[in-house]
Parts: sequence; C-alpha cells; structure tokens
Amino acid sequence: MITEEQVLERIRRARERRPRLRDERITLAHGAGGKATQSLIESTFLEAFRNPALERLADGAVLEADEARLVLTTDGYVVSPLFFPGGDIGDLAVNGTVNDLAVMGARPLYLSAAFILEEGFPTDDLRRIVTSMAEAAAAAGVDIVTGDTKVVGRGKADGCYITTTGVGVVRHALSVDRVEPGDAVLVSGPIAEHGVTVMLARGELDIEADLTSDTAPLHDIVAALLEAVPQTRMLRDATRGGVATVLNEIAKASGTAVVVDESAVPVRPQVGGACELLGIDPLYVACEGRFLAVVPAECAEAALDVLRSHPLGAGAARIATVQDDPPGLVLGRTAFGGTRVIDTLVGDPLPRIC
Amino acid sequence: MITEEQVLERIRRARERRPRLRDERITLAHGAGGKATQSLIESTFLEAFRNPALERLADGAVLEADEARLVLTTDGYVVSPLFFPGGDIGDLAVNGTVNDLAVMGARPLYLSAAFILEEGFPTDDLRRIVTSMAEAAAAAGVDIVTGDTKVVGRGKADGCYITTTGVGVVRHALSVDRVEPGDAVLVSGPIAEHGVTVMLARGELDIEADLTSDTAPLHDIVAALLEAVPQTRMLRDATRGGVATVLNEIAKASGTAVVVDESAVPVRPQVGGACELLGIDPLYVACEGRFLAVVPAECAEAALDVLRSHPLGAGAARIATVQDDPPGLVLGRTAFGGTRVIDTLVGDPLPRIC
Repeated sequence: MITEEQVLERIRRARERRPRLRDERITLAHGAGGKATQSLIESTFLEAFRNPALERLADGAVLEADEARLVLTTDGYVVSPLFFPGGDIGDLAVNGTVNDLAVMGARPLYLSAAFILEEGFPTDDLRRIVTSMAEAAAAAGVDIVTGDTKVVGRGKADGCYITTTGVGVVRHALSVDRVEPGDAVLVSGPIAEHGVTVMLARGELDIEADLTSDTAPLHDIVAALLEAVPQTRMLRDATRGGVATVLNEIAKASGTAVVVDESAVPVRPQVGGACELLGIDPLYVACEGRFLAVVPAECAEAALDVLRSHPLGAGAARIATVQDDPPGLVLGRTAFGGTRVIDTLVGDPLPRIC
Repeated sequence: MITEEQVLERIRRARERRPRLRDERITLAHGAGGKATQSLIESTFLEAFRNPALERLADGAVLEADEARLVLTTDGYVVSPLFFPGGDIGDLAVNGTVNDLAVMGARPLYLSAAFILEEGFPTDDLRRIVTSMAEAAAAAGVDIVTGDTKVVGRGKADGCYITTTGVGVVRHALSVDRVEPGDAVLVSGPIAEHGVTVMLARGELDIEADLTSDTAPLHDIVAALLEAVPQTRMLRDATRGGVATVLNEIAKASGTAVVVDESAVPVRPQVGGACELLGIDPLYVACEGRFLAVVPAECAEAALDVLRSHPLGAGAARIATVQDDPPGLVLGRTAFGGTRVIDTLVGDPLPRIC
C-alpha cells in the first residue's frame, strides 16, 4: 500500500516533468480539456508558438493594440447533437466566447464566426442556428462583425462546426497570480447541467431526466460581481473538464492547494442521479453558464449575496478554500471526513460536449 | 439571339433583387467564394447578424475598441491535401489571415488558432503543421496568442481543420468606396498558382506540372506599396473565387465597371496549360499570395515599380481599368478585340482549395 503522501509526491513529480507528447495519434481525450489536452497544448502548441500572452494559458490572451488593452479568445464548437434542451450549437458558440471574455475581466464587444459546413446540411437548420446566434449576441450586447464559410464533402464533417473568436476591452485586472492562501472559491450555480443534458440528448442511453443546458451569457453577472467585489482575484468558467479541472488549473498556476468541501458543491438531484447512472463525477462535467470566482475570504459573503441576487446565480455557493499546502493539488473533503485527491480530468467521458 | 445589352440588363436586374436562399441543402458551391457563397452570406448571415461593420462584407471588420482602430478577420482552412508543393494548411492558415489584415490597411499583430482534429490524426503531421504555422507567424511578425483544440470521432472531419482569426491596427484608410472611374487595377503577380497546385497535388488527374503554391505573407509588400503610393484606393487578396470574383466585388460595391485587358493578366505557361486541360479559367482560380490594388491612373507606374522591386511582386502587372459604365459589371477585352462579361464564380470547380 502506498500512503497519501507518496501519491501526492508522485503526482507532484509528474507535473514537474517537461511535457512530451508520446501519443502517435490524436485521441478524443486530446480534445476533452483535461490532461491529454494540456499535454498536447504544452508539448506542441506552446513549444512552437511560445510568447508571453500564450504562456499564460488562460481562457484568452491579454493584448496591447495602440492605446487599448484587449482580450482575444477563440473556441471551436463541435457539439453533438447540434440542438439540445436549452440551446443549440449557435447560442453555445456565442455564449462560450462571451463568457471567456467576461471571466478575463473584459467587456465583450465583437465576435467573428467561422462555419465549416458539411455538404447536404439542411439550410433550415443553419438558419435556426444563425438565428440563435443572433439572439445570443443581442442578449450579450456584442456584434458578430465578420465571418467565413467553408463547405466540405459528405462525411468530412458532422453537419456544422462553428469557431467563434471574441474581442473585448479589459476592465478589471483578474489573474490567477493574485490567488492567495485563505481565499474562498465560489461557484455561481449548480454544476454539470450542460454536459449531462447533451449526453442524454444523444439518446444513446436509456435515461430520462427533465434537464436543460445551463448555456447562458455571463457578462452581466460577472460585471455585477466585479462592481460589488473589486477585490475578486480571478474568475474562470467551468466548461470542458468541469469544475475539477478549473480548480486544478488554479492550484497549479498559483502554487496553492485548493480544498473542496464536497458536500457544498451544488448539484441538482436529477443531474446527480444521471451522473451516478453514467458513472461519472459531476465535478468533471462541463457547464456552459457557470463560473468559479476566487475572492478574499472576508468578501465571500458579499460576493455570494451579489451572485444570488442575479437570475444566473441563484444557486451560488462557497465550495472550496485556498491553502498553502500541498501546493498544486486539489483535495476533496467528503461528508464522512475522508480526503481524496481531485485530479485534472483524464480521458474523455463525454466527447463533443461543446 | 439576345444582344449584349440585354444580357447586361438581365444581370443588373438579378443583382438588384433581394437575396434569398432557395437551396434546401448546403452544397460545395456555398463554400466556393462565388455567387452561392454571396447568396448564403447575404440571405442568412447578414440578415441575422446585421451591423455596420458586417454590412461592408469586406475581408474583415474595422472596429473601435477604446482608443484603437482595429481590424478583425477570420478564416477557416479545410484545404485538401493538407500538405502540397510550396506549403501546407499551417502556413496557409497564417498567411491567409495575415493577408486579410494587410489588404484592409492594417498592421497584423495577433492571431488566434482553433483546431478541429479527427481522432486518429498522426501527431507527427500535427507537429509539422504547427511548426509551419510558427515559421509563417515569425515571418509575418505576428504572435499566435491564444487557441483551442477540439477532437471529433473518425469520419467526422478530414484530418485537421484550422480557423485563424487575426487582429491588426488600422494604418491606412482603404475602401472600395474610394474607387473612381479612370483608376487602374493592378495584380501583384501571376495568378491561379495556389489553386492549380492544390488541385494537381490531389493526384486525381493525370497531369504533371512543376508548380508550387504562391502562399506568402503580403504584409511587407503591401506596406511598401502604401508607403510609396498612399493614394492607393483599396486592396484585396484574390483567394477563393479568384481575380474575377474580386473584380466583381469591386465593380458591384463601387458601382463602376471594370474593364480587363485579358492579354495583360499574368499567368505562367504551366498554370495556363493546366487550366486548359482542367477546363477552368485561371481568372476564377484562387491565389494565396497575390493581391489586387486599385490606384489612381497617374500612380499606376509608380505602384508597379514598387511592387516589381519586391520579391513577392516581380510579376506585377496592370490588368484593368475602372470605367463609369456599365455599372456593376466586369468586362473582358480579348486579344482579338472581342468583349465578354466576366461574372462572379458560379459553382465550385475546385473545392477545398483553402
């Protein structure tokens, strides 16, 4: 038997190693937002493109252009199915990129949209998607100002893929560097709803549940929080890889430990039930309208009040505390007093969730 | 028999009609950059997203962000094969977006890159593509500052698709609105090389030719031209749809006629020969390192001198003149004294060229 200390030590050592991509072929896990994605990014993209903005490996890049401080962020959307309860690839593609700007402390201004369409894709479906994008953009106060359309032959795509890129202006200096031991970690609402909804919408599983995706634009609730609690250290939306992966990014980048009170993590009963049947931990399931906020402990209550008074933050909760030790790790404290290491997502339990 | 006047009148009337997308399904032509693409953009994207920046339907959008004037441009790359003589999808994706910024009068600064990878794609190929992107970015003086990776299952993509989005700062106010009757239209070098090279690289045709793609970053030659000839009205790179489609965009948007001296259009003999065998007109074939410049007639010689003194402009030539009449049309004058209407590309003779 190995002790917890030995496990922690092994994980710590593995993380210090220089990343190398050993896989000879791309697997679904490389797109899941967890360990394999990080290894691909660090070994391949970061190695080749290295520059200070990219090195931060944040949701977007903070840039200088003449007198402006901008955030640029991009995401490809390949969700399957294209339409699911609570949304579709269109509003997902707008909200996801708006949210990446918002959690970087930027006011979202402009989006671009690049479509890769499969020959034979119904134009009615495209219109439905585009209408949904237009409505989401209007709701978020951004303009879709430029775009591109490519068409590939049958069997070379899956209906419709969309890449949106967002530009915003920096209004708040948020950074994982500002995280300190003692800080509180909040989540803006119940987790895992988007991922579980999409999974069930595929109809491959014989599970019925009355679920809808949480896809929503976070610019407004984020603005409310940052105005009321300017001491906020950092924000991150919990998409691919889920809350657990974001917490690991925080612990790793800030060199702290994040200790999660697992009983405090808000999960709706039907989501928790579906996760149990699927055999997946909701902490690893993507949200598309929830974010984590790290705030000084003394601001936690004020921050929760602001979040809970917003329609998108009714279920906000404090779920974790930042500690000195063990640096770089996320630990879960269970209701029964046990402790487990909550690692970054490994593999891809839910492919093509966004 | 109908007269030329009747043909012109019919075309003119067709263009005044409000665009409607009649097709029930997406076809390859919707991605070809010609008529079907325009109809898709105008009927679907523009209708839904309408805003002043998008309405210009240029290579990118000119935006205000705090004190900066920016250009944002995006393009998806789905070229097949991924590697071809003279380049690959990687440098194409960087150069193409750098060029869209350059011809908008902007200094290219930052790129984002979003990858959609097919499960099973060789990581060695990905590394080769990424290295090529890094080299192209370095050559163009831009940083790739943020990105995204998605993986889809086998048979849901074709190896690797890349969407790059570029941000630049506006340095020159170029616009098709500035085009005037009497202006000269220049091309920076021999045309159609990229498209023909990619077509032959597919190996489906029994044609051998010693051709390489013209893919190249145009920021430097464009900067040289704009410094020497600040009177330059507008620039446009001739990608999908080729030179003919760009000339039609100019004629339509500026309400002028563009009269092409067909014998002056530079086409290398092996490219011309391949086009003849393929049964396609080089005027409709994509370049990835050539642009059109509209300049006042009195600046044409000075502009050609600047272009020809740059390594990427050795074959620059004056190919057309802007006229009052017939507005919105491109006419070709042949060596034998004949005249033909050179329309926007219809259909897609060369799918997945970029």
